[in-house]
This record gives sequence, C-alpha cells and structure tokens, in this order.
Amino acid sequence: MTDPRTSLSPDLDALLATRRAGHGMPRDFYQTEALYAAEMRRIWQGGWLFAGFGIELPNPGDYITFAVDTTPVLLLRGDDGAVRAFHNVCRHRGTQLCRADRGNVRAVVCPYHAWSYGRSGELRSCNGMDEGADKSQLGLRPVHVAEIAGLVYVSLAATPPDVEGLRRDFAASAKPQGFDRARVAHVVDYEVEANWKLVWENNRECLHCIPCHPQYVKANFDVVDETNVSPAMQQRIDAATARIAPKWQQASESVLHAHGGLATFPDPERGRWFASSRTPLAEGFVTESMDGSRVAPLMGDYDSEAVGVLRMRSLPNFWVHASCDHAVAARMLPAGPRKTLMRGYWVVDAKAKEGTDYQLERMLPFWHLTNEQDWNICKWQQKGVDSIGYVPGPLSSRFEYNVDAFIRWYQGQMRG
Amino acid sequence: MTDPRTSLSPDLDALLATRRAGHGMPRDFYQTEALYAAEMRRIWQGGWLFAGFGIELPNPGDYITFAVDTTPVLLLRGDDGAVRAFHNVCRHRGTQLCRADRGNVRAVVCPYHAWSYGRSGELRSCNGMDEGADKSQLGLRPVHVAEIAGLVYVSLAATPPDVEGLRRDFAASAKPQGFDRARVAHVVDYEVEANWKLVWENNRECLHCIPCHPQYVKANFDVVDETNVSPAMQQRIDAATARIAPKWQQASESVLHAHGGLATFPDPERGRWFASSRTPLAEGFVTESMDGSRVAPLMGDYDSEAVGVLRMRSLPNFWVHASCDHAVAARMLPAGPRKTLMRGYWVVDAKAKEGTDYQLERMLPFWHLTNEQDWNICKWQQKGVDSIGYVPGPLSSRFEYNVDAFIRWYQGQMRG
Amino acid sequence: MTDPRTSLSPDLDALLATRRAGHGMPRDFYQTEALYAAEMRRIWQGGWLFAGFGIELPNPGDYITFAVDTTPVLLLRGDDGAVRAFHNVCRHRGTQLCRADRGNVRAVVCPYHAWSYGRSGELRSCNGMDEGADKSQLGLRPVHVAEIAGLVYVSLAATPPDVEGLRRDFAASAKPQGFDRARVAHVVDYEVEANWKLVWENNRECLHCIPCHPQYVKANFDVVDETNVSPAMQQRIDAATARIAPKWQQASESVLHAHGGLATFPDPERGRWFASSRTPLAEGFVTESMDGSRVAPLMGDYDSEAVGVLRMRSLPNFWVHASCDHAVAARMLPAGPRKTLMRGYWVVDAKAKEGTDYQLERMLPFWHLTNEQDWNICKWQQKGVDSIGYVPGPLSSRFEYNVDAFIRWYQGQMRG
Repeated sequence: MTDPRTSLSPDLDALLATRRAGHGMPRDFYQTEALYAAEMRRIWQGGWLFAGFGIELPNPGDYITFAVDTTPVLLLRGDDGAVRAFHNVCRHRGTQLCRADRGNVRAVVCPYHAWSYGRSGELRSCNGMDEGADKSQLGLRPVHVAEIAGLVYVSLAATPPDVEGLRRDFAASAKPQGFDRARVAHVVDYEVEANWKLVWENNRECLHCIPCHPQYVKANFDVVDETNVSPAMQQRIDAATARIAPKWQQASESVLHAHGGLATFPDPERGRWFASSRTPLAEGFVTESMDGSRVAPLMGDYDSEAVGVLRMRSLPNFWVHASCDHAVAARMLPAGPRKTLMRGYWVVDAKAKEGTDYQLERMLPFWHLTNEQDWNICKWQQKGVDSIGYVPGPLSSRFEYNVDAFIRWYQGQMRG
Repeated sequence: MTDPRTSLSPDLDALLATRRAGHGMPRDFYQTEALYAAEMRRIWQGGWLFAGFGIELPNPGDYITFAVDTTPVLLLRGDDGAVRAFHNVCRHRGTQLCRADRGNVRAVVCPYHAWSYGRSGELRSCNGMDEGADKSQLGLRPVHVAEIAGLVYVSLAATPPDVEGLRRDFAASAKPQGFDRARVAHVVDYEVEANWKLVWENNRECLHCIPCHPQYVKANFDVVDETNVSPAMQQRIDAATARIAPKWQQASESVLHAHGGLATFPDPERGRWFASSRTPLAEGFVTESMDGSRVAPLMGDYDSEAVGVLRMRSLPNFWVHASCDHAVAARMLPAGPRKTLMRGYWVVDAKAKEGTDYQLERMLPFWHLTNEQDWNICKWQQKGVDSIGYVPGPLSSRFEYNVDAFIRWYQGQMRG
Repeated sequence: MTDPRTSLSPDLDALLATRRAGHGMPRDFYQTEALYAAEMRRIWQGGWLFAGFGIELPNPGDYITFAVDTTPVLLLRGDDGAVRAFHNVCRHRGTQLCRADRGNVRAVVCPYHAWSYGRSGELRSCNGMDEGADKSQLGLRPVHVAEIAGLVYVSLAATPPDVEGLRRDFAASAKPQGFDRARVAHVVDYEVEANWKLVWENNRECLHCIPCHPQYVKANFDVVDETNVSPAMQQRIDAATARIAPKWQQASESVLHAHGGLATFPDPERGRWFASSRTPLAEGFVTESMDGSRVAPLMGDYDSEAVGVLRMRSLPNFWVHASCDHAVAARMLPAGPRKTLMRGYWVVDAKAKEGTDYQLERMLPFWHLTNEQDWNICKWQQKGVDSIGYVPGPLSSRFEYNVDAFIRWYQGQMRG
C-alpha cells in the first residue's frame, strides 16, 4: 500500500483551495464521501487519538474497545501493567475479537475458531492451523499507544507524529489533577448528526455561549471580548484569578489563562495540536456545577477548592474541563460525513464513593446540558451547510480566531 | 460556479436518449444518484415550486419552512404584508434559522450566535463580528417568490423562468374559489417510497382509477375514453355539464373541460407546464366526498353547489382539486431517488369553523384514501422498475397521453 | 446491452488478483459497491439459484415470490402442473405483480391497471391499450426454471449454465428423501449483517463448530481432522457408518461420506458447483435434534431411522441437511454488500401432522440455534474485515480446504 500522505486527488486538492481566508469552509467540506475517506487516512489514521483513561482498565486483562470509523481498536492492560493497543481483529479470518464495550480477559480468544492471544498480543494457539504456521508472524497487529498523565492515546499511523511535546505539557499540567488516581463516575454516549469538523468549530469559540449555554456562562469568562474589557469586568477577572491559590497564580504563563476569552488553540503555524491552560471561575463557582458548589471530594493533589479549571485539548478528538472536584472529558469518533460519536466522561477522585461522597444528579447536569445544547446546534448547522444556499460567512477575529485556526490546522493536515 | 444548465455529462445525455418513443422510461431513470442530482439542478432548482398557501401565514412575522431535497427554505410574511422567501440558512456559519414547521417571529434570530435578521431579510445585528463587517452584504439570501391567487410559489433559480403565464391563468380560474380568503383545515404529510417521477406519472392518467380508486371513480368522468364514448355516457356527461351553473358552462374553452378523460397536460411542445380546467361531477356528487354531499360551507365567491371541480396543476410539484366547499391540494418535494415527500392540504372557506361547519372525518376520507392508494401503488412500481427484468412498456394513446407528455416535458427540461 | 460476462473493469480485475493463495480475501472483497454489482451480474444473474420447494406451490395457481437483490421473481404453478418462473414485473409500467410472499391466483392481475396474465405468463388483457398492441410480445418475461427432485431452481441468465449434472446427482441422491412428497413445516427468515461470501465461508468449514456450535458437534463428525484420526475416533466413525442401513453403506463412493471432516466442495477445477453426500450420525443421534431422537415420522422411502444425514449444496445459494424424519434447508439471497437474507426451511413428510406427529418446539432448536450462532459470528467477522487493520490470514489445509475452494470458485466465476 502506498503512503496515503503522498497523494490526494486533484479534485480534493482543488476543494481544499476553495476556502476563503477568514471565512468558514464551503459546503462540500461537510458532506463529501471522498473527502471523509481522505480525512480518515490523513487525520484519523495519522494523528494521536484520545482512547480513554488508564483508570478504566486498572488491572491486568482489563480491556476497553472502540472503533475509529470502521476500524475496531482494543486497549488491553498487560501483565506487566502496561496498556497496549491492538487492531481488534483476528489474524486468522478477521473476526472482531473483543465485542463488549469493556471487560477482563485472561487471554484474547477469538469467538470464531478460538485462536488465542496473550495479554501482550502474541499468538498463543491457532486451533487447526498447519504445523508450519509461524506464530511469531501472527500476533495481534499493534497500534501505537502512549499513556500520559492517566490519559491513553493511540495512533493508527505506521509512523506516528512525535508525542513528546504533548507528554511534557500534559504531564506537567495534569499532575495535580491526578487522573491516574481517579475513576470514571459516569459515561454518556451521544450520537451527533453532524460532521466532526462542525463539532470542533463549535468547541473552538464561546460566542455561542450566551445564546446556547445559560448555565455555562455563569461560571466562566470565556465569553469576554479580550480586545474590549470593561473596567468592571477586568476587576471581576482579576478577583477571580486572585481567588486561585497562589501557586496557580504564579504558574508559568503557558499554564495560567488569567484573562477572558479562549486560550489560542490550535496554533498550526507553530505545530501546536495540543494545549493546556488553567482558568479562574466566576464568583460563586468553585467547580462547574449548576449552583457552583462542590459536587465531589477534592481530586488528586488538590488541598483547596481554589484551583479554577484545568483545560486540556488535543486534535483531532479530545478535550477536558477539570475542576477541583471532578473533570468532564469528551472523546470524538467520526462515523460518517454526517455522524459523529461523542463520549462524555465524568471523572472523580479514586476514593470518592457514589451516594456518599457524590450524587450523579448533582454532578451531571452542568456538562450534560452543555453537551446536548452543542450537539443540537451542530445538527441544525449541518442541515444548513447542506443547503445549496449556504455561503461560508466571515469569522469574527475577536471571538472566532480559534475556529479560523482549526480550519488552518485542518487544511495543513489534509495537504500532508 | 458554472451555469448547471449548460452541461450534462455525456453519460446522462446518453441515458436520456435511451427512452423509446411512446414507452415508459428505462430503469436507470428511477434509481440513479447522478441523475437525481442533475434533476435537482435542472428542474427543482430551476423551475417554480409550489410552497404553500398565503393563508398559512396571514400576519406579519408568520413563517413556514420546508426543504427542497437538502435545501431549507423559509417563507416569511413581512411588515408590508408581502410574502418573502429566503434560504433558511444563517449568513454567518450556515445554521438553519427557523426550525419549526411554522410559527411567528419578530425577527429571524439564529439559534447559534444570535445574528438577527429583519422580517425583510436584512441583517440587523451580527453579534461579535468585527467593526468592518458590511451588513448590507450579509442579509438573508433571497429566493424568488410569487404569490398568485393565494398560492405561494418559489424558485431557487438565479434567473427563474417567466411566471406571468401561470399568474394570468391561475388568477382568472382560481378567483371564484377564493384561496386568499380560505384557511387550511388539515394537512397530512406522506412519505412515498418512490421516485418523484413515478408519482407524477401516476397523477397524469386515470386508467388506474378503476383498479385503484373505487371511491374516486364514482364522482368523476376521468376514466372515460374520449375516443369511444357510448351514447349513454355522453348523455351523462352532458347532463353533468348542464348541472354546472350557466356561467361555468359558458366559460372559455380553456377553462371548461366538458367531456370525459383528462385534460391534456403538460404540453411541452407549447411550453405549458401549468394548466387549469373545470370539470363537472357525476350525478349525486356536488363535491369530492364519500357520499357526494357537501362537507363544508361554500367557498369564495360561490353562491351555488353547481360548480363542479376546479383543477389546477403546475410542474414539477403541485396540483389541486377544488370543489364548491373545499379544495384538496398536493405539494411534492423530492428527498432522494427513491423517496418523495407529499403534503396533502384540505382547504375550506376562511369563515368555516371546525365542528360546527364541517367535520374532518367527513371531509378527509375521499382524498386521503385516494392519496394512500396512489402512494402504495407507486411503491410497488418502484420495486418493479428497480428490477433487471423491467422493460418499459407501451403507453396507451387513449389513456396515457399525459404520461407520455410528462416524459417529453422531463426530457426537455433535462436537456436544458 | 452487452454481455456482462465479457468485461470487468481493470480495477475489479486488479482487485481479484490481490488475494494471496491459501489466505482469505482482502477487505475490499467484502464491502465494495462496485464489486457487489459485478457479483450480481456474474454470479447471481448467471448461475442457478435455489428458489424453494415444489411442494410450496402444490396446486395450479399457487405462487411464491422472492427477490434477488432488487429483482423480484415469481414462481407459479401452471394449469399443466409445471412450475414456471417469471420476472414479477408488469410489462406495462413495471409494477411488481404479486406482492404477497405466497398465495394462489386464477390469473396474474397487475394491481395498477389490471393487465392480466394467464398462469403460463401469456398476456390475456391489456386494459386501455391501443388496438394495435401485440399481446404476443407482452407476456411475462420468463426466467429459466428447473424442478429437480422437489427442489425448484431458477436462473436469471439469458443462457444459463448446464443444469443436467446437478439434476442427475440430486435426483439420485434425494429420491429416497422424497422432497416431492413432503411439506414445509416451518420457515424462518434471517437478516444477516454480513457479506454473502462470509456466510459461505462459514458454511464451508467446521473448525468453528466446537467454539460456536455445542449442540451440533454432538451429532456430527464434521470436526474430525481426517489427516490425523485417533484409533478411538476411527472406531466411532466406523461404528456410526455401520449403523446406517446396509444399502447406504454399500452406496457408491460419490454418495457415502464414511469418514470425518467435510466432503470436498466446491471443486472449481472440476466444475463442481453442486454436490451431495450422505454422512453417518454420532452414537445416540438418529436425526439432527437436540437429544438425538426422532422428531417427526420417517420421510419419503425411508423404512428405518438408520439413514444418517443426506447433505446437498449448490452454489451460490443452497444447502440442506436431511435426516430420516426431517430436513433443514437454507436459501441465501444477497441484499447489499453487508446484508444477506437467509431463509431456513424445516421440511417433513407430507403425511405428518403438526401437534400429532411432530412438535415444532422439538424440531426447530437444533438448526435454529446453529443458524443464529453462524449469523452472529458472520456479523462480527464483517465488523473485523471492515477494519483497515484486517489482513487476510492463512487458511488451514486440514480444516479450511473448502473455504479455499470456495474462494477459487468465486474468483473463477468473477473472471468469467
């Protein structure tokens, strides 16, 4: 097979060139099967994908499964404690091996002919095969994996891009949050009737937050126009920043986002496809909950509620908002030009107990509402961009700079 | 974008040429995605489409929405009382603006970022945009609209075909019916599992009426073979024609259809894509109801039940049968090569009150049955023409001349 | 129309060449629309397809309907007692004629315009057509049919391949089973979410029987590795063979399969796309039932339970397992690259009466379980072969020789 990065059809190259600078992407970007297939090859089979939390598979033999478009992947904790990733496909006749969403196995046994693979992916037995079969050539096909600060990333690429920059950034910023000493309190799977790029564009600006997210805007300063802050608003932001424990206040510039608006992300010209930052919360909010009060015990190393929100994201499929007591993450998986599967994770400290230490009905609404509000608006945007009457409009330099940056990142990825 | 009317691929041109004169259309006409896409461009984005009745949006700010294939359209009554049509898509990021089937708005406000448009489509506010944004260039994209005798037509074409002929014809023939002083008593939406052309072919002949429509044939003379009328039948038709008030009897030839069979329509060689005619009803029927008796108060200018049925049609998507007391219209919208959305409208005089002046259970059955019988047979025809064993058969010159005319009209439209 | 057998696109020819000898087929074979369309032309519109049992339509006017992909076919018993097959499509406008799964008709009357065809397919009346219409040219389009030992086969080909070899083989081997003196006790329709070739590959090996079919392996010797039979196993097989009445024991080699493993089928190099064989059952089993005991009266000519299982198969769509008391058949019909419709038939002697002579709850489970186990594993195999991580694995020469033979047969058919 030729390297899919070296050639894109003239049609697709021409399509990529039709986007007008400072404007949204044209109609075909959101509905063309051929472009979607090219995106799978160049972006989704090229980059690093968030797969889940290491804490979801704490013990040897624990596994989780998911699919990138039509490619099933298996994450499996080995006897040595390391998480491995494999193509979840038997080397014999191609049957999907692990079929549950999650579970624990002594060995990976194919349901078809009982070929059996060890927890490190090696072929143990190949029932019925000829004597000459070379088992060493028939182990599970590995997928690149990196476990970083409790987050598990995979790459389907033959030679993945460098992940060390992300590792350094996330390891430093996520350390106090303790994702590796946490547990997933709840998961919600959403099926979004929209192209995956619309979901990202939605995520990359908060101009829509006042119309769409009444609860979200009470807690955050994202909607502030940093080019035109009123003295009163500046005072509120400064006070909120001051409430964060001095250690965060003195953190390096790269981590603390001590003003309104959204941190710049992505930054394709500087190769930044991941980022983390810490933002203060508005007065009355120590966490992202409906009433602003704590909904679970403090996480990780935190000894105070005054930590604001740690935000991390990586392209093409991950973001998280982590407060003092819980974190809410999102994992994106495309499933067609007009369908995107989103998983929402609610994460708490490992020692927190449901019912006693936290109640889901208090913890879920803030982000479950925000998610549903976003997926709904993406659905209606898809219906609109599918129209022959759709013309990409101008992006606001004050509020949608990150949408523009996302589109530039996308174009760069697609051009290879 | 080049004018889609100037080029059709050699494949599609060759396909159009495969139809044998006097016969139905070959298999590929009813199932090919590429042909369907070409039909959208040449016919559905080219001609005039019936959108609804003006009485559905009586007041300033009233709107209705619908979609032509994947293109959402908004009909909106302005403060000046005029109906306007727009692409129902925000000029900012392309979100569908009005999402309900109908409603009333002070202004059209995008649910995403709250861009706001006046009732004439002008951009009022573009929340968050840069100072330099030229609002005059960002109003809603207009769709051509014509309100004619209470019917609202739209055209998605850049330069629509002339509509004045239709206006003169319908304005004259529909005046006494009073569609502009009526109201929609009921609407039924049908999803037909067939290509839109099969639905038209079904509409354009009544040879199927005896096998398919037992209630319809009691009221109408459509099934009569005009080349071979028995003296007894001619007497019945003459008597029925005589029952119509003298004013209709003396109407110009173009309006009164004082014999059996279907009026010739369309007439592609003379450029007739619309037509109206008035037909007498069989003895015992003053309206198209199950028992033939009146089911609502007289409409419009009528002062007698003896008006027969006013029939109007326009290609590619409208027909109506209007009796003395109510009218039943059909609006067609394609939704894929094998899916067509049909809306049935039951219309009564504006002053008629449900429960007192009319009962839906008496008014609906005649045409609701007829509709369902037709959509069902179209579904089974689609299954048959999808077969490799299907060979287009001969059309009857006595009964299916209008099917042949429809096909000739279609070929002409597609050839541009 | 050109003969579809003479040309296959360079792409498809290249695709066919990508299969590595002794291995499964690559990913594209199981999901490509273009390949599926070529398969319809070359295999499903080329060969002989099992359509049903003659006993399903015992009387003149009895009919059954089915569809090969999107091509509806009608099987109809004529007044002369012969079964005929037709394209189930009206010669007028193409409507599907008989719409029920089965029934009885005096004449085939189109539901649309009441064109009427005699039970031999001739056009009787063509309501509304012009005088000049030549009825002799407008009869139902025939489909080739062959009734063989109670099985009805059809071919959509213009010139079908020779069926006399199958006729000789099946007539001889099926005679004592008496499919022509039987009746269908029960039918189950299954929708399998997998490519039709995966269903055949599943059928052509029993290496999966121990992991997948706990009940099946108790009754049969299919799982035995004939290259390495233990003395104890050989003793069991010999004893089982000896239990079969001497007449079967002495039958010609081509019929009696007196050892373990699966009979070789297909044999593309020798042009064998059909085969029959008789196998002994394991001790304790006189039929394929859950407890091994008889579940219905003896069928056909049998005067003893000691008949083992008569197995017959023909490509591309039929197999049957016939025991002394009942037979279980499978008919395959493709419905898209990832969807296959399977019909399971349970057949008993014509004189057997439900409730008195047999109970469905005793007869169905053995094969209904086996069927569901197979369709489920095919579904998971489809999910795996859809992956970019799927690599066709090696086939076992001892257990999967028939899978390899099926693939060779398939390649030969597709190359024409």
